[in-house]
Amino acid sequence: MSPQSAPTDRTRLRRMSHKAAHDKATVHAILDAGPVAHVGYIVNGAPHVTPTLQWREGDRVFWHGSAASRFLRVIEGTQACLTVTLTDGLVLARSGFEHSISYRSVLLFGTVQIVSDPAEKEARLKAMMDQMFPGRWPQLRPMTTQDLKATTILTMEVDEASAKISAEMPDDPPEDRNWPIWAGIVPVITTLGPPQPAPDCVPGMALPVVTFGG
Amino acid sequence: MSPQSAPTDRTRLRRMSHKAAHDKATVHAILDAGPVAHVGYIVNGAPHVTPTLQWREGDRVFWHGSAASRFLRVIEGTQACLTVTLTDGLVLARSGFEHSISYRSVLLFGTVQIVSDPAEKEARLKAMMDQMFPGRWPQLRPMTTQDLKATTILTMEVDEASAKISAEMPDDPPEDRNWPIWAGIVPVITTLGPPQPAPDCVPGMALPVVTFGG
Repeated sequence: MSPQSAPTDRTRLRRMSHKAAHDKATVHAILDAGPVAHVGYIVNGAPHVTPTLQWREGDRVFWHGSAASRFLRVIEGTQACLTVTLTDGLVLARSGFEHSISYRSVLLFGTVQIVSDPAEKEARLKAMMDQMFPGRWPQLRPMTTQDLKATTILTMEVDEASAKISAEMPDDPPEDRNWPIWAGIVPVITTLGPPQPAPDCVPGMALPVVTFGG
Repeated sequence: MSPQSAPTDRTRLRRMSHKAAHDKATVHAILDAGPVAHVGYIVNGAPHVTPTLQWREGDRVFWHGSAASRFLRVIEGTQACLTVTLTDGLVLARSGFEHSISYRSVLLFGTVQIVSDPAEKEARLKAMMDQMFPGRWPQLRPMTTQDLKATTILTMEVDEASAKISAEMPDDPPEDRNWPIWAGIVPVITTLGPPQPAPDCVPGMALPVVTFGG
């Protein structure tokens, strides 16, 4: 991991295969596979990183929070960085130095905007629900004016997007490869468990379709 | 999710059970269960959020990167926010508004410090490896002076730490509870898959012990 790290001279060539990708298809695929994002803002001069759900429509990402949050109001118009990271595996090498993580990440940089039109807000929330729980929206208790008022929807004019993908087997230098220790990848897998109904769930309801993580 | 969001008046009471915890034991347990962190810095006046592995020793957290990274050098002495989030489930309610995420998160705020003494750097890296892969360190090709030089280890004097835990069933208001739709929690589960040996792995090596996620 550590996408911020430039390779050292020694590792520059061997690590070229850690793809830095800026093409839209790669960025979009990672965003769609990772609904959980970490958004960094500057609040009172200091960085502030909060987890949130993001969803994408075309080139835009959206996230949301409570309209009662002073926090969300003060960050309108400021710069933000929205990061999505998918951890795919642990890469075990022959030296501590060569251990790494198999991951996919996207960093989006841009300016925070707030979606204020109620009809547009409802359309954006429907899009989020349609992506995570296809078919559920029309069955829900419909949104109320109060629901929409109480929800702040944020989006970003993306100035810069970058993706990183690291998915290789350990790349120990040749002189280390016969070191007598297991080397390879231990996959990290995210799955959904069996749905647990609420104690007051109406009996006989069909289970939801969930595509969390696309 | 949206730990930044204060509850609205309407939901204030019902949501009191979303615990905001600041006690050390809770903060430590979440950090230990979530090695993947997102660290926010201010770089050239804008927020920058990067994924990294963190590990804890006592009250301190550490993370690391490449010494060749200019990025890591310029953030020494600046404020940072290190966030760990564990996504435990999707909370499906009767309205879109009440849908939420079951999660545990920690935000640490503080000033970035760099560990520069080589012996201390090696001790910190050993601590990270011992936590993730117990027993592996003594079997590895030993660290070299060059390995240590090429690795930057960062830590934080923590000024403020806060944890949030949200683990409830959907809390629709009473008038919505008979809405005819499934409601409950769909767990999100992170597990380790079967180890995949590198093509050039020495045959017959014992599989590693991995405690990723504590």
